[in-house]
Amino acid sequence: MERVSEQEKVFVKKGEQMANIKDIAKMAGVSVTTVSRVLNHHPYVSEAKKDAVLNAIKQSNYKPNINAIHLSKGKTFLVGVVVPFSNHPYFGYLIEGIAAEALKHNYKLVLFQTNYNEERELEALTMLKLKQIDALIICSRNCSWETIKDYISFGPIVLCEDARKKQVSSTFIDHYKSFNAALDYLYQKGYRNIGYCIGRKTGTNSHQRHQAYLDFIEKVKQPFHKDYIFYDCYQLEDGERVVNKLLNMKQPPSALLVTSDQVAAGILACCKEKQIKIPDELAILGFDNEPIAKVMNITTLDIPLFEVGRKLFNQAMKHDSIFHEEVEVKLIERQTV
Amino acid sequence: MERVSEQEKVFVKKGEQMANIKDIAKMAGVSVTTVSRVLNHHPYVSEAKKDAVLNAIKQSNYKPNINAIHLSKGKTFLVGVVVPFSNHPYFGYLIEGIAAEALKHNYKLVLFQTNYNEERELEALTMLKLKQIDALIICSRNCSWETIKDYISFGPIVLCEDARKKQVSSTFIDHYKSFNAALDYLYQKGYRNIGYCIGRKTGTNSHQRHQAYLDFIEKVKQPFHKDYIFYDCYQLEDGERVVNKLLNMKQPPSALLVTSDQVAAGILACCKEKQIKIPDELAILGFDNEPIAKVMNITTLDIPLFEVGRKLFNQAMKHDSIFHEEVEVKLIERQTV
Repeated sequence: MERVSEQEKVFVKKGEQMANIKDIAKMAGVSVTTVSRVLNHHPYVSEAKKDAVLNAIKQSNYKPNINAIHLSKGKTFLVGVVVPFSNHPYFGYLIEGIAAEALKHNYKLVLFQTNYNEERELEALTMLKLKQIDALIICSRNCSWETIKDYISFGPIVLCEDARKKQVSSTFIDHYKSFNAALDYLYQKGYRNIGYCIGRKTGTNSHQRHQAYLDFIEKVKQPFHKDYIFYDCYQLEDGERVVNKLLNMKQPPSALLVTSDQVAAGILACCKEKQIKIPDELAILGFDNEPIAKVMNITTLDIPLFEVGRKLFNQAMKHDSIFHEEVEVKLIERQTV
Repeated sequence: MERVSEQEKVFVKKGEQMANIKDIAKMAGVSVTTVSRVLNHHPYVSEAKKDAVLNAIKQSNYKPNINAIHLSKGKTFLVGVVVPFSNHPYFGYLIEGIAAEALKHNYKLVLFQTNYNEERELEALTMLKLKQIDALIICSRNCSWETIKDYISFGPIVLCEDARKKQVSSTFIDHYKSFNAALDYLYQKGYRNIGYCIGRKTGTNSHQRHQAYLDFIEKVKQPFHKDYIFYDCYQLEDGERVVNKLLNMKQPPSALLVTSDQVAAGILACCKEKQIKIPDELAILGFDNEPIAKVMNITTLDIPLFEVGRKLFNQAMKHDSIFHEEVEVKLIERQTV
């Protein structure tokens, strides 16, 4: 015989005047067990019965207080997702992947859009602590690991960065390795004065990339030019600022590694306008392989962001194990290098 | 004297062994009233005191069960947001605006990414019914109004479409009016064979636009060409498909109204590749005024999406009044018409 679930008990106990679980079963023409299964998202219920139950609930004006259910089950079916912005394709694709997997597990996403404000990140961590969410996926953070560490006992926290030395699961790109490979590709193509465009100066991924850059130019015995590094490059519009800076330099870089295809596309469009020949006068190597890179024929490193999002969600569902997954990037040769 | 809030009572009542509200006050060196104010997000607390209280909570390992608080307050501080996709700039900007305003009111967003699947929309409506969210913002829907109507008694529902005849608040663009103005602009510029690209065939906004199109061509006595309307145009990549269709038409349209700058950019890039002269051989008028329209010099209708998002959130906070706000679009003349 089927065990009566906690959720059902609450439904029965807190059943309001309108209808209780027995009424729902009667209205839907199914057993109480079936209603219970539907309420608990049990997989083995036929679509027809499920529809009948959901219709009965709808028609009955039956309002179980779900917060009472959460209290008894200790589960919210909500996963927090920390992103700095939601209007950037990079995070849009990650969210899309997380959402696709969440759907399969009947989870909803609570979005924390932080603009890299640490206080917003703390709010997300606090919601995990207060059991308002079951797990937290941090796509990009400003908080130190020391801060996050205090919250790992409250529920799964998953990072989208190399966290192999940390006590949380992670899905990541080895940015040191991929930056190094990209620099090597440009070097092999004959470019010597190589610069790069990036978002933040700080952050785990930025540090790894900068280290790869420093190590590379040392290896190939090129001088370090501070002004070959362009910060605060996130969006299309930032490309124009980069090109204007290039135009004012005596010895501008001959190639740029651009950590977002959005910015790469902005640089390319601005160069076309100012009749700077690509790649002869400036080579551009983007990141992510977004649709805009395909449309504008930008050579780029493909990062399977949708897939990364899916993996992050699945890691967030594992309460009892920590694991790390590295995602490989792939060079897509087009016309800008 | 300050009234003791509901939230504080719960904290006191349900205080776990670790620490209660008095311990927190003592640790933070503030009054119980101040702790209560911080917990209730009262505006008049100095940053220093707020930090002291939050630090004390963090250090104390104090874990009030927030679902118990929700039960007593009847508030979750969560707002649901229904979008079909999260990897599209149109919805990215709406979410950004909603999130910015939510932040001010200490609300978090629960994201329902539906892919226009009606069942996903019903889940969002059900969460409102079950009081898992305080309000629901539907940015684009597939459900009929008849379905939604059944849920309006459970909490504020806000639509991003002209809902002046419905019993919910809305922030909207008059798509009939703006489509008509755009067609008129193209006509005044001398274009006669005008077509349009759109996402869905169905949906309130699509219907309004189609009606405007039919009325316009009737007014200017132009024949109706079924194949001048291109459906399923959402993303950059869809532009290529449109151009390939144009190339196979005996009498292709001389101008296209494109309801997304993403698609307009895709069409433009593909035309450049195939050496179709813009605007001489094909005029392109986009929608939204996204950064890509600026970068690629696309003539477009500016829609202040961030502002629309903010308005939607503020409407969702009003439990006792229904109001409608129309947002004006603005023509941005660039080089594709």
